[in-house]
Amino acid sequence: MPKLRLFTPGPTMVPEDVLLEMARPIEHHRTQLYRDWLKAATEDLQYLFQSKGTCLTLTGSGTAAAEGAIVSIVPPGRKALVCHGGKFGERWRDVCKRYRIDHVEYEFEYGSAADPNRVEEFLKKDPKIGAVITVHSETSTCALTDVAAIARLTRERDCLLMTDCITSVGCLPFKMDEWGIDIAITGSQKALMLPPGLGFVAVNDRAWKVIDSFEAPIFYNNLKAFRKSLADWDAPWTPANTLVRALRLSLSLIRKEGLENIWARTARLAKATRSAAQAMGLTIFAKHPSDSVTGINTPAGIDNDKWRKEMKGKFGVQLADGQGQLKGKMVRISHMGYVDEIDTLGAIAAMEMTLRAQGYKVETGAGPTAFMKALSG
Amino acid sequence: MPKLRLFTPGPTMVPEDVLLEMARPIEHHRTQLYRDWLKAATEDLQYLFQSKGTCLTLTGSGTAAAEGAIVSIVPPGRKALVCHGGKFGERWRDVCKRYRIDHVEYEFEYGSAADPNRVEEFLKKDPKIGAVITVHSETSTCALTDVAAIARLTRERDCLLMTDCITSVGCLPFKMDEWGIDIAITGSQKALMLPPGLGFVAVNDRAWKVIDSFEAPIFYNNLKAFRKSLADWDAPWTPANTLVRALRLSLSLIRKEGLENIWARTARLAKATRSAAQAMGLTIFAKHPSDSVTGINTPAGIDNDKWRKEMKGKFGVQLADGQGQLKGKMVRISHMGYVDEIDTLGAIAAMEMTLRAQGYKVETGAGPTAFMKALSG
Repeated sequence: MPKLRLFTPGPTMVPEDVLLEMARPIEHHRTQLYRDWLKAATEDLQYLFQSKGTCLTLTGSGTAAAEGAIVSIVPPGRKALVCHGGKFGERWRDVCKRYRIDHVEYEFEYGSAADPNRVEEFLKKDPKIGAVITVHSETSTCALTDVAAIARLTRERDCLLMTDCITSVGCLPFKMDEWGIDIAITGSQKALMLPPGLGFVAVNDRAWKVIDSFEAPIFYNNLKAFRKSLADWDAPWTPANTLVRALRLSLSLIRKEGLENIWARTARLAKATRSAAQAMGLTIFAKHPSDSVTGINTPAGIDNDKWRKEMKGKFGVQLADGQGQLKGKMVRISHMGYVDEIDTLGAIAAMEMTLRAQGYKVETGAGPTAFMKALSG
Repeated sequence: MPKLRLFTPGPTMVPEDVLLEMARPIEHHRTQLYRDWLKAATEDLQYLFQSKGTCLTLTGSGTAAAEGAIVSIVPPGRKALVCHGGKFGERWRDVCKRYRIDHVEYEFEYGSAADPNRVEEFLKKDPKIGAVITVHSETSTCALTDVAAIARLTRERDCLLMTDCITSVGCLPFKMDEWGIDIAITGSQKALMLPPGLGFVAVNDRAWKVIDSFEAPIFYNNLKAFRKSLADWDAPWTPANTLVRALRLSLSLIRKEGLENIWARTARLAKATRSAAQAMGLTIFAKHPSDSVTGINTPAGIDNDKWRKEMKGKFGVQLADGQGQLKGKMVRISHMGYVDEIDTLGAIAAMEMTLRAQGYKVETGAGPTAFMKALSG
């Protein structure tokens, strides 16, 4: 009976109290009770995004939130600059394609970060660019882009900055207003400690001005419809109200722990994991690693699938495979949400034991020892 | 401490076992376990829709499912005929507008049904009409349209029929393949006895042929993307997997009871409710009433809000107000899903007692007595 320990970079583990919240009797959403939940959750989302902007709660995945944002911020006559170096950046490029949004692509190598200097070149060359689309933490490559540096370029131009914060907000330092980011999105199943099913979009006044200047060709994930309903603490279409009830609780847990403490914990876990990997002779894929999820290259001679299967089968430790072109080449371990030092130490130990069992040479205890040293160092 | 009795036409009450299913530890969706859930649920959805077609499970509300369907079935050069006589039909018209889908409107009176003869006139006059969009049970007016009769017109023409079955499938007789309906949609929070958060689209081969003939301008609710992933029992974007887990259970409960038995129970509750209303001197709004939800006109001299508030406050019985132009003019009581004779009898009693308390003249017990007589008759 292996106990499941979910280390995939979404869905992540959900606190037991939050799970139980979803088992409570169903309520209607056009009630004062629901309006109170949504109001409390919305205020806590502003804290989460560090923004006084409008925080919209959509029923859908992070992709729903991204679709809603992308189609709304590029008016006719303007262009998007899509910065991508991983599967999710590519997906937002595909959204532009599908909606025939005029766009240019800044493609960078998998595992590296978008370079603000290159972004500046694009902006200088083409004043039609009205929105830069970036991924803060690219979950597929586990790499972090300095979106604050990119915001310094966009905020002084007639150009919005949208950031995919799906695996950053609520676990990595992110300061929407201070940095000058105009529109940011995330999903429920990452740092927010919830099951999948909710997407979030935070929008500042500068972004609303653009959004209000034209009619985006979208109905379900329409940001204006959500803003209108939010004025009455409602949603334009029936919301996933059991998830919103759970959201209210999970956000209150985040607020209780405090964002700074959560950021520090996430960074601590990531740093110690990288240390442990090094001590086991393993290498990190990303040149600019994100602290929310660590991508470790599968060492030569080890079968990625077999390795992950044994970790899960023997020890209940579930890591994610690489995605797209990285499939079979790496394992990804999440540091987001409801996960702590002891959980992660266990995952490192499982990683080490299964590697050894498959013929990889590593001194017993090297990983956990390095992990513990990094924690105390 | 009033116990809550939720009679709104969505969300509806959810069985306790289904609620508990959502409190189980979170699992990843790219696992054999999840694939088995989705496979079982998808087979049961085919039973629910009475169709051998493809049944897609989207993360979103019924509106997400409708958007996905509507934008996919009207290729460039063709037109939609939108039949509407209520808020939801109007919403599907608005989807056409937003996506600039060429369309004509067949508007009929609130409370009445779409007339197949009128639909035939539209089709004869304009061969560019490639899709008829109808609402089977219009939740806002509680009226039922004979979609089988409309299907007899479309199935012999080069024209698809889409039906909104949000408050029909799983509670009212609906036979997609036998009737010749090409694409049908529903949501989780009605007859499926689940919280909101999932939308469903059933698609037959005739519809796929049209869908495959062009690229619909949609990303998130894209039916082709869902079909592609379903081949591996997966979803293109992270699904609301706790809801899918619960879906598997709720559909197995439906299968156990049997659709014919559920249809009979729903009809019995609706008939007895109409009888009770009549016995209390109340009138039914719809000329062609649907059996899934009954809309009762608020009698003269009674304040709708006050009436509903007292029912909920004193007896925990929550009915819905009218929608749109019917706001304040009717109460709506659902007969869908996890609701039975005793539940509904209680709601009728609450209705009667609160009416009397607000000065309405009715003999004590008239409603429940008529309700019971109708059940035994």
